[in-house]
Amino acid sequence: MERTEISSLGEFGLIDHLTKNIEHQNASTILGVGDDAAVIDHFGKQTVVTTDLLIEGVHFDLMYTPLKHLGYKSVIVNLSDIYAMNAVPTQITIALGISNRFSLEALDEFYEGVYAACNKYGVDLIGGDTASSQKGFIISITAIGEVAPDKFVKRTTAKKGDLLCCSGDLGAAYLGLVFLEREKKIFLESPAVKPDLEGEKYVIGRLLKPEARKDIVEFFETNELMPTSMMDISDGLSSEILHICKDSELGCVLYEEKIPIAEETRSAAFKFELDPTACALSGGEDYELLFTISQEDHDKLVLNEHISVIGYMTEPEKGKKIITKGGSTFDITAQGWNAFSSK
Amino acid sequence: MERTEISSLGEFGLIDHLTKNIEHQNASTILGVGDDAAVIDHFGKQTVVTTDLLIEGVHFDLMYTPLKHLGYKSVIVNLSDIYAMNAVPTQITIALGISNRFSLEALDEFYEGVYAACNKYGVDLIGGDTASSQKGFIISITAIGEVAPDKFVKRTTAKKGDLLCCSGDLGAAYLGLVFLEREKKIFLESPAVKPDLEGEKYVIGRLLKPEARKDIVEFFETNELMPTSMMDISDGLSSEILHICKDSELGCVLYEEKIPIAEETRSAAFKFELDPTACALSGGEDYELLFTISQEDHDKLVLNEHISVIGYMTEPEKGKKIITKGGSTFDITAQGWNAFSSK
Repeated sequence: MERTEISSLGEFGLIDHLTKNIEHQNASTILGVGDDAAVIDHFGKQTVVTTDLLIEGVHFDLMYTPLKHLGYKSVIVNLSDIYAMNAVPTQITIALGISNRFSLEALDEFYEGVYAACNKYGVDLIGGDTASSQKGFIISITAIGEVAPDKFVKRTTAKKGDLLCCSGDLGAAYLGLVFLEREKKIFLESPAVKPDLEGEKYVIGRLLKPEARKDIVEFFETNELMPTSMMDISDGLSSEILHICKDSELGCVLYEEKIPIAEETRSAAFKFELDPTACALSGGEDYELLFTISQEDHDKLVLNEHISVIGYMTEPEKGKKIITKGGSTFDITAQGWNAFSSK
Repeated sequence: MERTEISSLGEFGLIDHLTKNIEHQNASTILGVGDDAAVIDHFGKQTVVTTDLLIEGVHFDLMYTPLKHLGYKSVIVNLSDIYAMNAVPTQITIALGISNRFSLEALDEFYEGVYAACNKYGVDLIGGDTASSQKGFIISITAIGEVAPDKFVKRTTAKKGDLLCCSGDLGAAYLGLVFLEREKKIFLESPAVKPDLEGEKYVIGRLLKPEARKDIVEFFETNELMPTSMMDISDGLSSEILHICKDSELGCVLYEEKIPIAEETRSAAFKFELDPTACALSGGEDYELLFTISQEDHDKLVLNEHISVIGYMTEPEKGKKIITKGGSTFDITAQGWNAFSSK
C-alpha cells in the first residue's frame, strides 16, 4: 500500500486535496470551503444546528471500524439529530484531529465515507478545520439543516394520551458491538483465528454503517403528519423515553411486545445469552426516531411499516412503566450509555 | 480547593449544570440547548458558519493557560472568523472532550470564560456535546453569524490598486508565547523561581486573552465602507497576505515601516533578540483583520486609528513584495504556523 505523509502537503494543501471534488447540491449553500467561514441562505426557513464530538478509544475502535464506515457514520449521527427536529439536513462542517500515524491514503478513505453520506442525504460539506493530534483520531462534525418556520419538533411538547412510536428496529447495533468486541478479544489472544462475521452481518452493519431516518421525516411531510415530540434513539430506548417524559412532564406506558426487534437481532442475542429487550432498551446507537403523535393520526401511521406504536403517554403521576410480555409492570430505568460512567 | 468529580453528575447532569444560567440575547435564537439540535431564524439574513478544533498540547498548554482565559479565547478565535466575513456572530455551539483529570470546578472556570466572551460579544451558546477523552482536553467550537444578503466579504475579490490594510497591532501574541515558553522551561528546571510577568503583561495578554475586531466591522457599517476582501490574521501577516494574493490572483507591495507593532512588542522583541517585523509577519494568533479596500475609501479609513494602511495590491506578475525600512525589496514568504510541520 502506498503511504503519503500528510505533512508533505501542509495544512492548506491537505484541505485542497480533501475538498477539491466538492460539488454543492443545495441552493442554500452560498459559499463553501475556502474562506474564514461558509455562508448559507435558507431563504426564509429556519436554520437547525447540531454538533457531535467523536474520539478514538471512546466512541470508536479503529481495530474493527473501517475508516470509510467511520466517515459515513460520523456524518449520519449528526444528520439523525437534524431529522429528529423534523428538519432536513443541508450542510455539514467537519473538524479533524489527526495523529501522524495516519497517512493521506487513510484520510482519503475516511473522506470517501463522509462524501458517500453527503451524496446519499443531499448534504454539502461547507467547511472545517484540520489539526494535528498527539494521540488518537478526533472527529467533530456540525450539521446544519432547515425547517419551515416553527415546524420543528421538540422534546417538551408531548401530550397526555399521545401514541408513543419508534421507527425501524432496535438493539441490533449493541449486539454488533458485543460481537466485534468478542472477536477483537479472540484476535488479540490468537491472531491466526479468522473471524466469522457472516452470521452477524445484520447487527454488525447496524453498528458500523447506520442510516438516518430521512424517509420517516419525508413520510410525515407527505402525509401531513406532525409528531407532538421527537428525538433520535442514540443512547437506548429507555433513556430516550425518560427524556421525553421528563421534558414534557408526563408519564408513559411502554409494551415490551411492541418494541420492534429484528429476527437477526433476536438470534444474535440468543447466541450471546442476552435479553433482546434489554438490548433494545439500553443498547444505544440505533439512530432510529422516537416520537409521540396524536391518537387521531393512528390510521395514517399504520400505512408505514417502518413505524411501530410501542405505547402511549400518561399523566406524570402514573410514572414511566413498561408492561412485560408476561403482564408484569416495571419502572423504566435509564441504563443507556453514559460517557462519564466508570465502566 | 473543592473537587467535584464530573462523573458524579452524569452526562445530562453535567450539561444541565453548565447551561442552567443561559439567557439568550438574540431574537434569532429560537431554540437553544436541550434538544437534538438548536434552531435559528436569521429573518432574511444569510447565515455564516465556521468551526475550529483546539487540542491540548497542540494549540494550548495548560501549564500557563488559565482555564478561564482558554474558554474566552476558544470563543474569540471563532468569532474572529465570523467578523472576517463582515458578519455579526450570533450563536455558538461547543463540544468538549474532557479527561477525568478535570474536576467540575475546573470545567466551571473554563465555562466562565466562555460565557464572558458570549456576553461581551452578544452571542448565545445554543448547543454542544460533552464526551470523555482518554487524554488531553479537546475543544471544538462552531460559531454562527448573520449578514445582510450577499454583503459578506470573501478572500477572492481584492482588486488591483486596492489598499492593503490591517487592524490593531501585530506580533505581540507570538512574543507572549516565546516569553511563557521560556518561563515554563525555567520553572521546570527550578520550581522555586517565581516568574516576573509584569514587564510582559501586554504581550502575554495578547496571547492568552485576545479580542475579536467587532469594532472594525461596526466601523465599516457605520461609515458605509465595504472591504473588497478580508480575512483574519491567525497564522501571521505573511501567510494571510499570500492567501489573499493567491485567492484574488494578484500581487502586492507591503511596506515594513507601515506594519503596526506596539511599543511593548518592540521592547519584548528586543529582550529576546528577535526582529519585531519577523514576529508580525510570521508570529500568528493576533486575531486582527487583514483587508483590502478601494483607494477611494482612504479618507474614511484614516478616521479610525485602529486601522493601518500597510500596502497595496498589484498585478500578479509583479509578485508579492515587501519593501524594508532600508529600501530593499524581498519576496514575502509564508513562515507562519503549520499544524503539520515537524518542528
